[in-house]
Amino acid sequence: MRLIKIGLLGCGTVGRGFIELLERNRHLISARANADVVVNRILVRDLDKPRPGVDHALLTSRAHDVIENGSDIIVELIGGTDPARRFIRESIINRKHVVTANKAVLSHAGGDLLDLAAVHGVQLRFEASVCGAIPIVRVIRQGLVGNRVSAIRGIVNGTCNFILTRMSEGLDFGAALRLAQENGFAEAEPALDVDGDDAAQKITILAQLAFGRRETRWVRREGIRGVTPDDIRRAAAGDSVIRLVAAAVDREDFIELSVGPEQLAVTDGLAAAREETNAVALQTDGAGELLFYGRGAGSLPSASSVLADVVEIAGAWDVRRVAGAG
Amino acid sequence: MRLIKIGLLGCGTVGRGFIELLERNRHLISARANADVVVNRILVRDLDKPRPGVDHALLTSRAHDVIENGSDIIVELIGGTDPARRFIRESIINRKHVVTANKAVLSHAGGDLLDLAAVHGVQLRFEASVCGAIPIVRVIRQGLVGNRVSAIRGIVNGTCNFILTRMSEGLDFGAALRLAQENGFAEAEPALDVDGDDAAQKITILAQLAFGRRETRWVRREGIRGVTPDDIRRAAAGDSVIRLVAAAVDREDFIELSVGPEQLAVTDGLAAAREETNAVALQTDGAGELLFYGRGAGSLPSASSVLADVVEIAGAWDVRRVAGAG
Repeated sequence: MRLIKIGLLGCGTVGRGFIELLERNRHLISARANADVVVNRILVRDLDKPRPGVDHALLTSRAHDVIENGSDIIVELIGGTDPARRFIRESIINRKHVVTANKAVLSHAGGDLLDLAAVHGVQLRFEASVCGAIPIVRVIRQGLVGNRVSAIRGIVNGTCNFILTRMSEGLDFGAALRLAQENGFAEAEPALDVDGDDAAQKITILAQLAFGRRETRWVRREGIRGVTPDDIRRAAAGDSVIRLVAAAVDREDFIELSVGPEQLAVTDGLAAAREETNAVALQTDGAGELLFYGRGAGSLPSASSVLADVVEIAGAWDVRRVAGAG
Repeated sequence: MRLIKIGLLGCGTVGRGFIELLERNRHLISARANADVVVNRILVRDLDKPRPGVDHALLTSRAHDVIENGSDIIVELIGGTDPARRFIRESIINRKHVVTANKAVLSHAGGDLLDLAAVHGVQLRFEASVCGAIPIVRVIRQGLVGNRVSAIRGIVNGTCNFILTRMSEGLDFGAALRLAQENGFAEAEPALDVDGDDAAQKITILAQLAFGRRETRWVRREGIRGVTPDDIRRAAAGDSVIRLVAAAVDREDFIELSVGPEQLAVTDGLAAAREETNAVALQTDGAGELLFYGRGAGSLPSASSVLADVVEIAGAWDVRRVAGAG
């Protein structure tokens, strides 16, 4: 059985979830992937911070120690644009496969990084960057490869959805936001979520996947700060709900992108996504309409998607080995 | 660009859909797969039957002509157990990759055929065999590879769901069945669907995927013939609907399988599947709960899944080529 060595960049919420899920389901994963996946180096900022369940001997504070050692796959879970982008580039140039959950880097430089990976003969995978546990990247890239996608609509920000769900129960925006922060769904600085930037990054990534490098035009880019309890009451009176909807629609000459609060009839599939749940609806010419729900964030849900990418890269080696043996 | 030659066994509803979708999205597919996919031989029973959109020169009535010619992938769309199983075996032994939509063969002999494929170093893929356009096989095998699945529940038979939807509008079983037949959702001989056998085959395949070769026990296996308009009215009075639910649940010592009509609260995710729509809910330890909706049958939806398998096999060659070049 092949040994797959993982160099982990970052050991925050998702990083610890990755280590936990890998440890918990080690036997299952080995049997399914015909490979033994082990973490052999972990980049952290603070070596002295207590990290229960993490082998202290694996920690380093130098990215170099992770990227240029003997790892087969680099898993980037630092987030933000820099230094994450630089680490991903260096890993690729060092001929390491890369798995990342980084929506900021991908929405800004995904195309360039994919090109760089192709040039160096390695893979760059990013299932966890959009909609946490929902395997939407895989569905678009692989499951729908024979289809022309005409539209994607999604509830892709769990924080906003949690806040809007609480507001539909009578809280105002400020109180709902505080509750989200207390429950760990929103950061102390919630702008990235509530102003719609996180949703904009995610729909940008989904649009690149579904439509390739066609021209895009933003027609709306708005968060949920402007949604009032009155808006929500009026919607409810008409059997509707307010949700932050991100969309990418093929308008023939260009791809129309939008993010903003929309009033959805309760019979709309997306309206059924409550709390921090994510949902994505796809319109296609062959498969018809597809709709997916799942957890959009969190330690284990995101780790599940990271692990799927790691195993699929490991599996590609396996296919090569089997086919090459013939 | 590599040429991928397809030998097609069967040219019925899904076969013609496959040819249509491949033709329509040829440029998209070539660009995405870095391969040109062409059908080079088609097995049919009746050479003289008119088949609009199908090149008559490709037709043959001898399976031999398809399996033992120069195809790279054999696509089996005949259905039923024999001769389909024999053709799949012969294709694998001839070292052809196989893509099939055949739930009957897979639920009876899937494990053996996968073993045979592994021995011969080829792939056997079957996304279209369960839930038509929903990429559920890919999701379980790849997207959730790092998870322990604890339960699968699904609406996996579109015919029964169409009939139950019509019954909820006041028709009795017989009238709803006739309407399903008139709309092409039910066969003249509807037993496979309405007696639950089709759903049983599909949940068997999903259980094999999610749980491997563990012991299974059937606790219920029932169709929808016994559902009365009274049952449906009583359910509706309690904000519920009746649906044919197929389930596979991990009971630690064994996997519990069941198929039968269940009363679901309208807030249950599966209850939202109306008409001929399929839905699958998965409980997992890492990703949490996931829920998928899509078209469960039909020419293009099933063809979409067949095509995804074909391209993924083609892509494996590509990964090998790129990696091998390093």
